[in-house]
Formats: sequence, C-alpha cells, structure tokens
Amino acid sequence: MTTRHIALLAYPAMTALDLIGPHHILSMIPNVCVHLVAKTLNPIISDLGLMITPSITFDDCPLQVEVLFAPGGTRGTLEAMEDEATLAFMRSRGQQARWVTSVCTGSLILGAAGLLQGRRATSHWVTRDLLSRFGAIPVAQRVVRDEHILTGAGVTAGLDFALTLAAEISGTAHAHKIQLVAEYDPEPPFDAGSPERAGQETTQALREMLAPFLAAATQTADRWRPSASF
Amino acid sequence: MTTRHIALLAYPAMTALDLIGPHHILSMIPNVCVHLVAKTLNPIISDLGLMITPSITFDDCPLQVEVLFAPGGTRGTLEAMEDEATLAFMRSRGQQARWVTSVCTGSLILGAAGLLQGRRATSHWVTRDLLSRFGAIPVAQRVVRDEHILTGAGVTAGLDFALTLAAEISGTAHAHKIQLVAEYDPEPPFDAGSPERAGQETTQALREMLAPFLAAATQTADRWRPSASF
Repeated sequence: MTTRHIALLAYPAMTALDLIGPHHILSMIPNVCVHLVAKTLNPIISDLGLMITPSITFDDCPLQVEVLFAPGGTRGTLEAMEDEATLAFMRSRGQQARWVTSVCTGSLILGAAGLLQGRRATSHWVTRDLLSRFGAIPVAQRVVRDEHILTGAGVTAGLDFALTLAAEISGTAHAHKIQLVAEYDPEPPFDAGSPERAGQETTQALREMLAPFLAAATQTADRWRPSASF
Repeated sequence: MTTRHIALLAYPAMTALDLIGPHHILSMIPNVCVHLVAKTLNPIISDLGLMITPSITFDDCPLQVEVLFAPGGTRGTLEAMEDEATLAFMRSRGQQARWVTSVCTGSLILGAAGLLQGRRATSHWVTRDLLSRFGAIPVAQRVVRDEHILTGAGVTAGLDFALTLAAEISGTAHAHKIQLVAEYDPEPPFDAGSPERAGQETTQALREMLAPFLAAATQTADRWRPSASF
C-alpha cells in the first residue's frame, strides 16, 4: 500500500488546537505521512503562544496529497488569506488533493484560495456568513461535506471533523478504534458550546469581543476577487 | 489582580493533544501566564512527531503555581515516571500548587511523584487500575476531583477537564464564554469513545495493541516506592 500524504498548513498566529486535534486523529490512519507545511521551517508561534516547528516547506511538500487541511485563527488567518505564497500552495495542492479540508476560520483560507466556489462549507459561527464572499454556501453544521470538500466549525469541531475524515479514508471500524484510543466520549461540564445553547448574554459578550476581528475579516473578504486560474 | 501561573509539564514523546487541549482552554482564563515547563528549552518531539518548544525550564518555573498539569503519553510517560529531575519538579510545585492536575496517563506521573496517595483519580481507561499502585483510588469517570486534585481520562477528556478547571478558577459565566468561543458542542460521528460503547471487538483489538505498553507500565509501577518525603 502506498503512503498517503496529509498536508496540514501551519502559519504564524494560527490556533494550535485547530491543527493538533486533527493531527492526532489523522496520524492514526494506516500508512499516512502527516506533514506540517509552512513557508519556512522556522518555528511558528501560535495565537496563544505555543511554539511549533513545521516539518516541511511549501516547496518540498509532495504535489499529490490525500488531504489538504487549513487550521483557523484570528489575525494570523487574515494575513494567510492575503499571502501569495500561502494561496499559491493551497491552490496547487488543493486542485489535486483527494480531500480539501479545514477547521474553524481555516475555511476562509480555502475560500481565499478559490477552493470553495459553489461549495457548501462551514466555519466558526462568528465568521460563517463570510464564506459567501468567496462564492461558497455557508452551512450551520458542525461538519459539512460537499463532495471532496470537508469543513468543520469552530476549534473543537476538529475532532468531529477528523473522525469523519478518518472513517472516509480508513473505514468505520478503524475510525472506531481511533475514537476509543482517544477516549472521545465527550462530557462537557456546561451546555454553552453554540450561540443557541449559550444564551443571549454570553453570545452577545463574545460578539462584542470578536467584533474587531469580524470587521477586519470582512474587509479582507471584500478585497477578494476570484483568481484568473479558476 | 496578580498573575496566576499555570505550569504544564512537557516531556519527550508526550501526547501533544493531552497538552494542547488544556493549553487552549486554560490560556483563556483572565490574568494567567501559561508555561510549558521542561528539563531544557530544547524542542520536544511528541509521540506523533510534532515538534514543540518549551517556554521555561524546571529551574526557572515559579515556585508557587495556580495549576500544575501533567499530560500523558505511552513510552515517554514511563520514562518521565522514573526521571528524578521530573519527579523532583512535580513534587516541589505539587506540594504548593492550588490545583494538581493531569489528563490521560499523565496521572501516572502524578502518582509516581507521590501526589496521589489516598486520592481519588482517573487515567486513560487502559491504565486506570494502575493508579492503585501509587496509593490512589481509581475512579471510572471522565473528570475526577478530590479536593485540589483534578484528573481527566484519556486524551480528549482534556477539554472537559480544562473547562471544569476554568470554571473553578474564573467562574461559570467565564467558562461559558471559553466554551462558546471554542465552539465546544461536540457531535462525535460515532459512539465508540469508551470500552462500554465501542463494543467487545473494538475494545479487544485495542487491548491487544496496547498490551505491551500496559505490561511496561505495570513493571514501572511495580518498581515504585513512596518517597521518604511523603
């Protein structure tokens, strides 16, 4: 059996958990080689201060990958959405990848690379509607599949997303083993994980906290034009 | 308000998700300084190949920490359980910490440091019963609190554990905000997250896969003697 290459994009100020959740699950698929792909091999500082070193550069990443994945973040994601080298990498691998995927605001990077045009997709609840600026159809679901495009909602949706993807690649029986070894039988101590469940006060407080980011993301999205190559 | 120091132990071949899940949640508590503490500042390679750089050494970590935390792993955890520098660090901070905590097999490190004697605690389902070798009382729950000792079950229990801890430190209303911004409203695509739910075939396959690790962990535990300082 040939090795399946899984390319996880990494960039400054990304949200590490967006990446590490899927990294954990996808690394347990048989015969995979999981790459942390970045512009250089210099250590990357995440939005919460973790220092993580990429394993391969854009240039050295295999051309044919089974999975292309973009994690989210806040300001770092907006920079990635307008970084030509990042977009060129995402386009080149995205056009050939078996699966084009993201978690959280990572779908904005897929959108900026032109990979979501006409596709149903999701994002963090705060940025979900922005997907339409990239020609995508926003869907309020935790994991959304449109053919080979698989996107997850905010941060922790990475686990549900990655288990779904693992089952597609290695079968349900193997995905069950991955779930059991990760003991993924969640019991959140509170029921505040979505705007509907968290209630108006909590949701409004977060909307206010995230308003500057959403405004900046909207400006970034407004500058976007479909690439000539699509 | 004074800064609360949160000390997350890091060691070679740890399971990165054990650490990064709690790191994400606990970093959102107001007025915290979250440290990745290790023997040296050299990059650490996780059990699945991630390269993560610690932020502070054992020697430089503040003496008084709000939270002391140990992530799990497999072979790397067994080495940490017998590493004198690691155990000395865990003992010195553990004796003064407001909260002594772990996820997955990290509780075996707490046990080896003598911090669980007479305490109710949990671990990954494969290693849970081993806790009794360290004088602890194994409890089959996802998150177990015994006074200032808070332990979580396998890998993904880190999210439930950390939200529980965040609420203890910063209050329930703030924990709700953390949960909402992380969109932690889990929807596992399968129901195989515990031995009871995964069924006999899946569980048996994993028990066989993990048997060499469990045998090695049992040997390590059998060599343990309570330290004179406890």
